[in-house]
Amino acid sequence: MNTLLKILICFFIVTGTLGGAYAQFDKPEDAIKYRQAVMFLIAKHFGRMGAVVKGQRAYDREEFARNAALVETLSKLPWEAFMVPGSDKGKTGLKSVAFRQQAEFNAAAEKFEAEAAKLVKAAGSGDLNAIKAQFGGVGQSCGACHKEFRAK
Amino acid sequence: MNTLLKILICFFIVTGTLGGAYAQFDKPEDAIKYRQAVMFLIAKHFGRMGAVVKGQRAYDREEFARNAALVETLSKLPWEAFMVPGSDKGKTGLKSVAFRQQAEFNAAAEKFEAEAAKLVKAAGSGDLNAIKAQFGGVGQSCGACHKEFRAK
Repeated sequence: MNTLLKILICFFIVTGTLGGAYAQFDKPEDAIKYRQAVMFLIAKHFGRMGAVVKGQRAYDREEFARNAALVETLSKLPWEAFMVPGSDKGKTGLKSVAFRQQAEFNAAAEKFEAEAAKLVKAAGSGDLNAIKAQFGGVGQSCGACHKEFRAK
Repeated sequence: MNTLLKILICFFIVTGTLGGAYAQFDKPEDAIKYRQAVMFLIAKHFGRMGAVVKGQRAYDREEFARNAALVETLSKLPWEAFMVPGSDKGKTGLKSVAFRQQAEFNAAAEKFEAEAAKLVKAAGSGDLNAIKAQFGGVGQSCGACHKEFRAK
């Protein structure tokens, strides 16, 4: 095997461009657009639940449960898109530090997923006090990740 | 009841701004952004399945089923956002005719939802021929709605 080939293989392995998760996105802009679409929908449906929690909107058990289930489904989607090389540039709030602290980033992402799953459970119970408490738990996990990894 | 009040109530009923689905969106731009986020994600995950159907990507039963389930979940979301008054203007491909042909629009939306649900069933079977056929069924329902209601 010649040297150029070895270097190329090393490059592909290091950058992850040989298969793997990044292959889902053709370019960084595509990954940015994808995760922003997911985050926009999460914010929208989390906001609908927030209106109920704040008493601005009547509590409808089924509707709330649907919103909680959707947020949980969406909570699993965006993470690979955040790790696409070069996607910390351009129209994004992602701090470059996320690439250097991937373990912390992944832990924050998993925390959000876990909290969103707990909100589905609370929503299923129909106990509005439990729901309100767990809505706060989800919100805290959003904020903790944004504080570290999202530029203001 | 004075005349102004009567007129206002008629206005709210006709425009649907008194409660109801439109209340989920503060302004037309918000509805446009919402439905575009949903449609972008549908296209993305439908595209991932398309790569499998075209033989460009290896068939992974679980991954395919996850993509099919996600598209089905997303298929239920965007329709109310399309019916927000004024959201046929600005950065959107929505044709105004959708407002005048709501029954046809709703039928096209329901057709897509039904086809997406059938794709979940096919994906669950693991039968790649059935999957390919039903992938085509979903694609046709996309195209039929876009042809009538989306500007090129």
